[in-house]
Amino acid sequence: MSASFDPNSPVFKSHEGGKLVVRSTIALTGRDALSLAYTPGVAEVSSAIAADERLAATYTWRARLVAVVSDGTAVLGLGDIGPAAALPVMEGKCALFQEFAGVNAVPIVLSTTDTNEIIDTIVRIAPSFGGINLEDISAPRCFEIESRLRELLPIPVFHDDQHGTAIVALAALRNAATVTGRGLADLRVVVSGAGAAGVACTKILLQAGVGSIVVADSRGVVHSGREDLTPVKQALAALTGAPARNASIAEALRGADVFLGVSGGVVDEAAVSGMNADAIIFALANPTPEVNPEIAHRYAAVVATGRSDLPNQINNVLAFPGVFAGAFDAGATQITEGMKLAAAEAIGSVIQDGITADHIVPTPFDPRVAPAVRIAVAAQARLDGVCSTD
Amino acid sequence: MSASFDPNSPVFKSHEGGKLVVRSTIALTGRDALSLAYTPGVAEVSSAIAADERLAATYTWRARLVAVVSDGTAVLGLGDIGPAAALPVMEGKCALFQEFAGVNAVPIVLSTTDTNEIIDTIVRIAPSFGGINLEDISAPRCFEIESRLRELLPIPVFHDDQHGTAIVALAALRNAATVTGRGLADLRVVVSGAGAAGVACTKILLQAGVGSIVVADSRGVVHSGREDLTPVKQALAALTGAPARNASIAEALRGADVFLGVSGGVVDEAAVSGMNADAIIFALANPTPEVNPEIAHRYAAVVATGRSDLPNQINNVLAFPGVFAGAFDAGATQITEGMKLAAAEAIGSVIQDGITADHIVPTPFDPRVAPAVRIAVAAQARLDGVCSTD
Repeated sequence: MSASFDPNSPVFKSHEGGKLVVRSTIALTGRDALSLAYTPGVAEVSSAIAADERLAATYTWRARLVAVVSDGTAVLGLGDIGPAAALPVMEGKCALFQEFAGVNAVPIVLSTTDTNEIIDTIVRIAPSFGGINLEDISAPRCFEIESRLRELLPIPVFHDDQHGTAIVALAALRNAATVTGRGLADLRVVVSGAGAAGVACTKILLQAGVGSIVVADSRGVVHSGREDLTPVKQALAALTGAPARNASIAEALRGADVFLGVSGGVVDEAAVSGMNADAIIFALANPTPEVNPEIAHRYAAVVATGRSDLPNQINNVLAFPGVFAGAFDAGATQITEGMKLAAAEAIGSVIQDGITADHIVPTPFDPRVAPAVRIAVAAQARLDGVCSTD
Repeated sequence: MSASFDPNSPVFKSHEGGKLVVRSTIALTGRDALSLAYTPGVAEVSSAIAADERLAATYTWRARLVAVVSDGTAVLGLGDIGPAAALPVMEGKCALFQEFAGVNAVPIVLSTTDTNEIIDTIVRIAPSFGGINLEDISAPRCFEIESRLRELLPIPVFHDDQHGTAIVALAALRNAATVTGRGLADLRVVVSGAGAAGVACTKILLQAGVGSIVVADSRGVVHSGREDLTPVKQALAALTGAPARNASIAEALRGADVFLGVSGGVVDEAAVSGMNADAIIFALANPTPEVNPEIAHRYAAVVATGRSDLPNQINNVLAFPGVFAGAFDAGATQITEGMKLAAAEAIGSVIQDGITADHIVPTPFDPRVAPAVRIAVAAQARLDGVCSTD
């Protein structure tokens, strides 16, 4: 993550010209092809859609097209680097959508960071797309942007930094609990970080039946007695029911079963040492996990990180391609809580016959994952009755 | 252009699933590739662009990416059919950009028709793109939208219905004049239509040295004495200097050398019969030319239409792919008047050794056209000093 610029390095060489191309599915090699794909033939298609907009799902690319939208304010660990600098990340994300699930995706980076302007802009370009993947938009704006877009738009809206992380973390935690001979209900969890990922992880873990959760931000445990909380954190305090007294993350970790780090804030050995036996430590900050993996292994039975060079990589790519592909298959108008839970279940189930402490989630390249997620998400969408054909 | 919907017809079959796909230029086949194209490698690229935004031109796809933007208000001859119904046309346009000039393009259709909202929206998504091709936005809003975006954005903005048509019409008219032994300065032109294409054609023809032009709208000749004129038409009246008296298009055509129809309004034989000998008739409305081609041939030495099944098709595809490719090659921040004139010159010159009355423009599939336009436009951009590296 150095800011050094070496145009001859493999990273820069591989990025020359960008990472995406748009191609036509019809070879425009002569007058006849042009007459079908463009004028005059296309006028028949446009007329038919004008008469019945539902036909756009069949005769345009939008029903299977994701906009990967970012304002560049919370990019990787780099922070607020702006739209142009965010673009290589969004291009990569679009490449992953295609590679892992055959879903078309286009990066849209924005020159505004104003909540209302972002919402207005996405609503206005929404007829071009079948789904909106919000990406790397800083908290707390990301929460309002997602929730208002979900109300305003008839297509799936999904903030991957929240829900992609939450889905994969849940899949991993369920298998980690299995490995250590427990159920989710037995677990006392401490989440470090009350941003996009922390909020979404807390919600999905509670929904999945985790016994208890305490969330800490940089000032300590989030509880209803604190007067410095944003509305989102106030809701989080109410949701977790944390006692109204100030406590550090080290105090919270005493007697806890699970540490889930989604903040980047370093947690030292003394704090980790207070956890229960057979602890589970997920330190997901990239490139530097919140708990040094070597130290984590001294106290935990299962350790996961966000890094590709260590076992148990918690990587959103396990979730988002299949989630959108499944939603598109079903013609879903939104991504429900049930669809997220189904995605997590599918990810964890793929390796059910081979779960070990060093293999609680499939690797990002396991070819079984995206199809499994896709099928599970589509089925759940139909069960939840959120398909446009319902 | 029937509104009938036959899912088994070749047109609808060819449109199933839409006409575009997004692909990655990097095969994401394993951890190493993922580490280069996505995390952690991509963080180096993002950091470098954050430090120097000019690097985005090299390390993202945006420098060669066009947004084809429409609000669906003036689509083909179908009129205001809305964004979803416009999408097949925009997809086709994007396919043409790739097919003819290797330029990536993405369709963006909008759920607003408000001038200010369209401008705001395009400005906000502009960091995603290297150029904006406005398409099928009705007059007079299209004029303000284009002119304000040209002021606001540091990238080429080009309303194809105006300038694409104007460039190809100029190319065709210059060669038609040659065929009939005249120069542009000798020509008295009547333009039928004061919308997007009519305004732009009038401007470029005057700039290219056409002797005189009169413009007519559905109420007759546009002149400064009329009190029903929009500001754009008032400016047009001033530009052409038409005498301040009411006149029909038939009266205007008496003694004219050129009829340029860009309105769809039918002109009858009696009106055409008053034109000079060796008249030139361009009747560009699709699918029904303003002058029946059979009638046109009775009075004119050269006849051109917008139809692919007749000789002398005036097709914007001769212009826009090469115009953007050339602008991108030069790093141009705008499309100047000079670049448009250079494009017209290049299109006409491609067939300079084989100009006949039935061959005043290259066919849309002439492979020499886009490269010639591209080179001419890039060279002119450098001469005009509008390149971002200047």
